[in-house]
Amino acid sequence: MASASDDDPRIGDISEGTVLRAILARTAPGEHTLLGPGDDAAVIAAPSKSVVATADTLVEGPDFRTAWSGGYDLGWKAAAVNLADIAAMGAMPTGLLVSLAVPRQTRLSFVERMADGFREACAALAPGCTVVGGDLTVSDLLVIAVTALGDLEGRAPVTRAGARPGDEVALAGELGAAAAGLALLFDRFRDGETPVPVDRTALDTDERRALDAQLRPAPPVRLGAVASDAGATAMMDVSDGLALDAARMADASGVTLSLSGAAVDALASGADRARAVGGGEDHGLLATFPAGRLPDGFHRIGVVTERGVDGVLVDGAAIAHAGWDPYRDWDGAL
Amino acid sequence: MASASDDDPRIGDISEGTVLRAILARTAPGEHTLLGPGDDAAVIAAPSKSVVATADTLVEGPDFRTAWSGGYDLGWKAAAVNLADIAAMGAMPTGLLVSLAVPRQTRLSFVERMADGFREACAALAPGCTVVGGDLTVSDLLVIAVTALGDLEGRAPVTRAGARPGDEVALAGELGAAAAGLALLFDRFRDGETPVPVDRTALDTDERRALDAQLRPAPPVRLGAVASDAGATAMMDVSDGLALDAARMADASGVTLSLSGAAVDALASGADRARAVGGGEDHGLLATFPAGRLPDGFHRIGVVTERGVDGVLVDGAAIAHAGWDPYRDWDGAL
Repeated sequence: MASASDDDPRIGDISEGTVLRAILARTAPGEHTLLGPGDDAAVIAAPSKSVVATADTLVEGPDFRTAWSGGYDLGWKAAAVNLADIAAMGAMPTGLLVSLAVPRQTRLSFVERMADGFREACAALAPGCTVVGGDLTVSDLLVIAVTALGDLEGRAPVTRAGARPGDEVALAGELGAAAAGLALLFDRFRDGETPVPVDRTALDTDERRALDAQLRPAPPVRLGAVASDAGATAMMDVSDGLALDAARMADASGVTLSLSGAAVDALASGADRARAVGGGEDHGLLATFPAGRLPDGFHRIGVVTERGVDGVLVDGAAIAHAGWDPYRDWDGAL
Repeated sequence: MASASDDDPRIGDISEGTVLRAILARTAPGEHTLLGPGDDAAVIAAPSKSVVATADTLVEGPDFRTAWSGGYDLGWKAAAVNLADIAAMGAMPTGLLVSLAVPRQTRLSFVERMADGFREACAALAPGCTVVGGDLTVSDLLVIAVTALGDLEGRAPVTRAGARPGDEVALAGELGAAAAGLALLFDRFRDGETPVPVDRTALDTDERRALDAQLRPAPPVRLGAVASDAGATAMMDVSDGLALDAARMADASGVTLSLSGAAVDALASGADRARAVGGGEDHGLLATFPAGRLPDGFHRIGVVTERGVDGVLVDGAAIAHAGWDPYRDWDGAL
């Protein structure tokens, strides 16, 4: 009689080929994939004669805890944060490469759920984009390294450096929700120092939304190309908090972004101001547009002015908070 | 007075931005880079309207030991193994994305040497290709995840599936050298179970060559495009040993590869037959060509026949050795 472990073997007990086949069985070929997994490399369409490429990695410990994030959550989030970076250039995602380093004792089903998370995040956020390749290694630590590729569809890339005095500053997405979700995890789902699984029934509707924003972020990927078409002069993904990322855009563009506190609060859905400007991982799109050109989905949060002493002002005052540093904040908190 | 640690801080004590700037200072812009590091994503030329993409990761433990591999070696090898996969499609590498997960106590100089290794491997093996992006995380374990991108320059991709009876089987590169180097490390540079630094003065010329083949492989990247231009019908990078990789090509193509033992030995430079066919990590290019079409740099090692019971024969006999599984062999050996 088969035991549960026969049906759901540990990664260290089966071959890399077996694992990869199980993952690929959950991955449909994408419309941009000219040659999919199974060879030394994939071939992906790049009709604009250029490819937009970005890499972002989730590491167990600094970036997530497996007590809080299931395989599906991790696949979803690893896809979403990379798709947002492609969108931030004004491009449409065309493919993901996923490199997994997985502890031997991990169950195959965990990795399969991760593949489901990748597939469904792509389908929801960037239809047509799929996992086109990757690799698998055993490791003492779970590491999910993703590269996302995208096509500009003939557009020029929108960098961080194009904001000009007189432009409007706008945001698509929300502020502080992912940080609120992280605070919930640290406040409510620990036994001493040890993370414990989340009991969603203990959460109200707003809390569940915050948790989802942290574990399964849904950045407005399609709005990246929309912003570019509307004439966005600068754009970036807000991954490290509005204060820090807006300062980066201001520095790259040589301008000051003068933001409205009330407009920021309006996108914070209950989060306080400190969390709205300092909290990371929301992955909204921060963009600047010539006055009056904001497309649907973007909300005006300020104006671009000549460069002053500070790169970012809220209601005319500098912000003290330095923003989110995933390098430090997660580990510092535990 | 500045201490040594002020000059060479630990990664955990400085900001991600400081580390990335130090790395980027060692990275020259490449000829294919339309928009380099510093934005949410890079933009790389894809003149063929497609991009070849592959990912391969080196994990501390299964893939390397820092007692044996310095930062430069690791950067070099992580670049080389990915460049070989691009070459195996008949493409030319255009850019690398490098995701580093690095322990906090790592010195900045280690990461800088890694950047040097990436740069110099690209310059030596695939001139014009450079690091175009990546990211950095702290981690309890050193993980180097690389994605390589390439352009087919108008060629069709050469897959594993195109070998046809009557073709010649050929190899560019050598066999068993990297495995000989690995055996040297395990045999000669351990204190009990613990790896100890390599003393090159204790090695003769052949041993140093084997060690270099293991730590700084130099796959014939440029010959991938040459093979394609010469009419290669199938091609792949020999990363897991000739026996296993040739079997994969045979299965994908639905043929048998009938190899000559003497021809295999001739490429093994002293390694015994078992190591020549079973040893991994040489990263030579295995290809099939219509009879009489082998370009310079490729050596005939056999012929393609109709599919028999076995996918690979050496002097008419099946091979028992299953080949190299990085998933198991390194860890199994320690």
